[in-house]
Amino acid sequence: MIRSARAFASVAPRATAIAAIARPAILRSIAVPLISIATSTSGSARSFSATPTPHSSKTVKLTSETYPEIKRADFSKISAEDIAFFKSVLPETAVLEASKDDLENYNQDWMRKYKGQAQIVLKPSNAEQISKILQHCNQRHLAVVPQGGNTGLVGGSVPVFDEIVISLTNMNKVRSFDPVTGILVADAGLILENADQYVAEHGFIFPLDLGAKGSCHIGGNVATNAGGLRLLRYGSLHGSVLGIEAVLADGTIVHNLSKLRKDNTGYDLKQLFIGSEGTLGVITGVSILCPPRPTAVNIAFLGLESFEKVQETFVKAKRELSEILSAFECMDNTTQDLVEMHTDLVRPLSEKYPFYVLIETSGSSKEHDDEKLAAFLESAMSGENADGSTSEPVILDGVLAQDSTDVHNLWQWRELIPEALSKNGGVYKYDVSIPLNRLYDLVIDVQKRLADGGVVDGDAHNSSPDALPVIAAAGYGHIGDGNLHLNVSVRRYDKAVEKLLEPYVYEWIEKVQGSISAEHGLGLQKKNYIGYSKNEGMLALMRRTKNEYDPNGILNPYKYL
Amino acid sequence: MIRSARAFASVAPRATAIAAIARPAILRSIAVPLISIATSTSGSARSFSATPTPHSSKTVKLTSETYPEIKRADFSKISAEDIAFFKSVLPETAVLEASKDDLENYNQDWMRKYKGQAQIVLKPSNAEQISKILQHCNQRHLAVVPQGGNTGLVGGSVPVFDEIVISLTNMNKVRSFDPVTGILVADAGLILENADQYVAEHGFIFPLDLGAKGSCHIGGNVATNAGGLRLLRYGSLHGSVLGIEAVLADGTIVHNLSKLRKDNTGYDLKQLFIGSEGTLGVITGVSILCPPRPTAVNIAFLGLESFEKVQETFVKAKRELSEILSAFECMDNTTQDLVEMHTDLVRPLSEKYPFYVLIETSGSSKEHDDEKLAAFLESAMSGENADGSTSEPVILDGVLAQDSTDVHNLWQWRELIPEALSKNGGVYKYDVSIPLNRLYDLVIDVQKRLADGGVVDGDAHNSSPDALPVIAAAGYGHIGDGNLHLNVSVRRYDKAVEKLLEPYVYEWIEKVQGSISAEHGLGLQKKNYIGYSKNEGMLALMRRTKNEYDPNGILNPYKYL
Repeated sequence: MIRSARAFASVAPRATAIAAIARPAILRSIAVPLISIATSTSGSARSFSATPTPHSSKTVKLTSETYPEIKRADFSKISAEDIAFFKSVLPETAVLEASKDDLENYNQDWMRKYKGQAQIVLKPSNAEQISKILQHCNQRHLAVVPQGGNTGLVGGSVPVFDEIVISLTNMNKVRSFDPVTGILVADAGLILENADQYVAEHGFIFPLDLGAKGSCHIGGNVATNAGGLRLLRYGSLHGSVLGIEAVLADGTIVHNLSKLRKDNTGYDLKQLFIGSEGTLGVITGVSILCPPRPTAVNIAFLGLESFEKVQETFVKAKRELSEILSAFECMDNTTQDLVEMHTDLVRPLSEKYPFYVLIETSGSSKEHDDEKLAAFLESAMSGENADGSTSEPVILDGVLAQDSTDVHNLWQWRELIPEALSKNGGVYKYDVSIPLNRLYDLVIDVQKRLADGGVVDGDAHNSSPDALPVIAAAGYGHIGDGNLHLNVSVRRYDKAVEKLLEPYVYEWIEKVQGSISAEHGLGLQKKNYIGYSKNEGMLALMRRTKNEYDPNGILNPYKYL
Repeated sequence: MIRSARAFASVAPRATAIAAIARPAILRSIAVPLISIATSTSGSARSFSATPTPHSSKTVKLTSETYPEIKRADFSKISAEDIAFFKSVLPETAVLEASKDDLENYNQDWMRKYKGQAQIVLKPSNAEQISKILQHCNQRHLAVVPQGGNTGLVGGSVPVFDEIVISLTNMNKVRSFDPVTGILVADAGLILENADQYVAEHGFIFPLDLGAKGSCHIGGNVATNAGGLRLLRYGSLHGSVLGIEAVLADGTIVHNLSKLRKDNTGYDLKQLFIGSEGTLGVITGVSILCPPRPTAVNIAFLGLESFEKVQETFVKAKRELSEILSAFECMDNTTQDLVEMHTDLVRPLSEKYPFYVLIETSGSSKEHDDEKLAAFLESAMSGENADGSTSEPVILDGVLAQDSTDVHNLWQWRELIPEALSKNGGVYKYDVSIPLNRLYDLVIDVQKRLADGGVVDGDAHNSSPDALPVIAAAGYGHIGDGNLHLNVSVRRYDKAVEKLLEPYVYEWIEKVQGSISAEHGLGLQKKNYIGYSKNEGMLALMRRTKNEYDPNGILNPYKYL
């Protein structure tokens, strides 16, 4: 039963009807303090826990040691003349040298999983400087790595060997904003959160939101085609990015910072740079369309009995919440049990259910959104539809956030999952896209395969060194986007488990024509697995494109393709 | 004053307040039968008049005669062996020959402005057949023109000389539809209206709507990156198209019919085909994300005193109507005077205003949308804002549609403009994108230039053969998308007028970094003007792309670049 001070009062007659018609045994009240409908005007309360915390105690192996099969390509070594050239283009302070400066933050990713050996970091201030640098590097066959906020998850933004790092940090200005159209033009190094705050002052919202928003750059977001939390509502960057400025390997500056929503004059080449992870050019500027900022945000947290019901709820939410639906996240009970075990949070619902769904709405009228959400939830719980027909109820229980604290707490049950799953030792992580009707089947099949393989001991409290390695395979993610995070929580990393998981998982995804990387990109980590999601014909075309734009292969080598 | 049975009753107290505070003289009642708030469940009533009517009496000159400067390139001539080969790939009925069949509909565009001389039309049924055909044509250096519904406006889909037409007409099937996600996969030759009707049965809407929807193909829509009436709400095809199947010049089939909303595995090459107008490959299949179909649609027709007020109204509408705003069209009074002159429609507002705006909302709750629209309109007319502040009223008068007849009638004042402007003799048409704050300046500058040039006689009723050629320069269009249609209505085509207009208009657009083709593409018509919207660097990259995909240049030659 939906319990909330306001909603309960207004829906009481129907709620009674629900109890009367159906399954009183599973319409539960909740043990936690009463939570009810609320507004968050910022819409950003949810990202509280998503900013990554580096494990600073971990010793980081050089990537070249972790992956001895990767050999340094035949690039030139940096000479004193090269450094002198860079100093002729940039101010002294924008040329960092390993001999004098600490380059660790540029050589390592934030997870401390990858570690390069760059000897030089360059911090240009404009596209012209980058043009001169790349022209030189291209002629000299010097490899480079463009680097934004360095918040990626696949090792794409750090060097592998001694590539020169081109950091966009000093390019962090808003170039223009049109408060009539919402079109923002900015340097690629502008931090996402700063971009969002800037447009928020004018009543707009940046059409992308990420846990790493306090560090990541909008140029890096575009270069990796970041997905994040607002994709369900505002679509992909391929739709919202209107233009880019980029520098090609040979120093050519691509001036395409269009401020036009519609432009059909020739091939839309900027699209190639979106998601190219710095392998075709260095993105130096971005033009993007920002929508009006919603003033009302609601959160509901629901319990469901099966993944079929999750899908039905999604269809119903898309239809009935339609233009105000802004997030639809799903978590299985395994994820919630582990969050409960490793935190002191009180579960939002008093009973356990096989699946949970977190729904967010964002709109321009709190009153209207409350009404839509209440009507949707009542109908979903009672099975009484707006057209008078009745059907099986699709949700069993739920709560609504009352204020921003509730919003924060409910989002925790989604946001703390990654950490909770790794707390017992480690976690094997897969970020994949799967056609929605098959999405959770992957989790079930992996669970069965691991159980059949005799590697599972499901008692999470068993910490005996003799216990079998796997605790559980769990699934959660941006279900509204068809994006599943399959996580296998383990007591320890184990070759037998790895052999059961790979290539099984990739082959499974290939069979259903899914994607082995929904939103995190390829980088170094998934470079070798792209073949499971793209056929040889597509790969051949991609290689031709790379060769056309960067014939010497100096841009972000060893990665992507 | 907003006049509508329902809205009037519900807003009466405020409406009185409006009259009391401000400008009673310009708050007009309306002479037409009372029109009030209404729903159109289909949302398609508005396209009534937009399907083009060919001028069948006009004699069509061969394109090669109209443009003698275009010379046939060194392609092979079709031989008996070629025809025999095509007949080995396709059924007899799918190979049309000029010697036996009437090819006029394939050789001419619907405007009867361009006329090619194709001797062969091929109508394949699948990508494999097209692959064999293109492989053969590429080896033999035979030029081809891919053709969809042949509804384009720039001559892109008809041959110039004797290119072989590959018609997609026989590829018109829905391949799959997922009623959970709204993802449709279909042959490229599926007619847009059929696609929309198909998904409508499942409660979804095709994210594109065009006047030509009864004839145009979804593959052609993708190939030309069609904009249309739903772009403001659902964004561009670059965001909604999830995958394509295409055949390259050498016969390679690009299998990329992804059904995934998120996929970051490699370069997003499908984007290149969107808007490439058949010059990189033949699109044979499309995968596209369809949003839930709105169940409530409202239309308001407003009078405004300046283009500044139009912009203010747009900002206000984006903010207050936000997620339900689905169209924002603007027309100047010149366009309305000419519609009035050439039709028997009764003007929706009793007084004339310099500008008119047509606002459409689409949402999932009629009641909520009515409330939002009423609140928006009252505040816009009274200057009393929701936060208690007051400002200058932005709109002077308006009406709301009461039923689908009203919806139809109000849309007429927008949809009949093109025809009305051409009725006095002819019209010079420019479909351009301009940053919104400069958008209408182009019309004003062109009006002044024509007046200074001594070519204007503004009395539209003067049909004397001695009258000066120009009646008026008028502006209208999808203002919400920054897309202006500048139309110069003339008594006769005149070299002096042309010299005043070109290259002036293109140079003007170049100066404000606009686009010389917002949504109609380049085709044959605008091929030579792309340089006004794209710099030489971009053009060089585009040429490299063309050369990479189609080194022999057999795909849709003489056009685009």
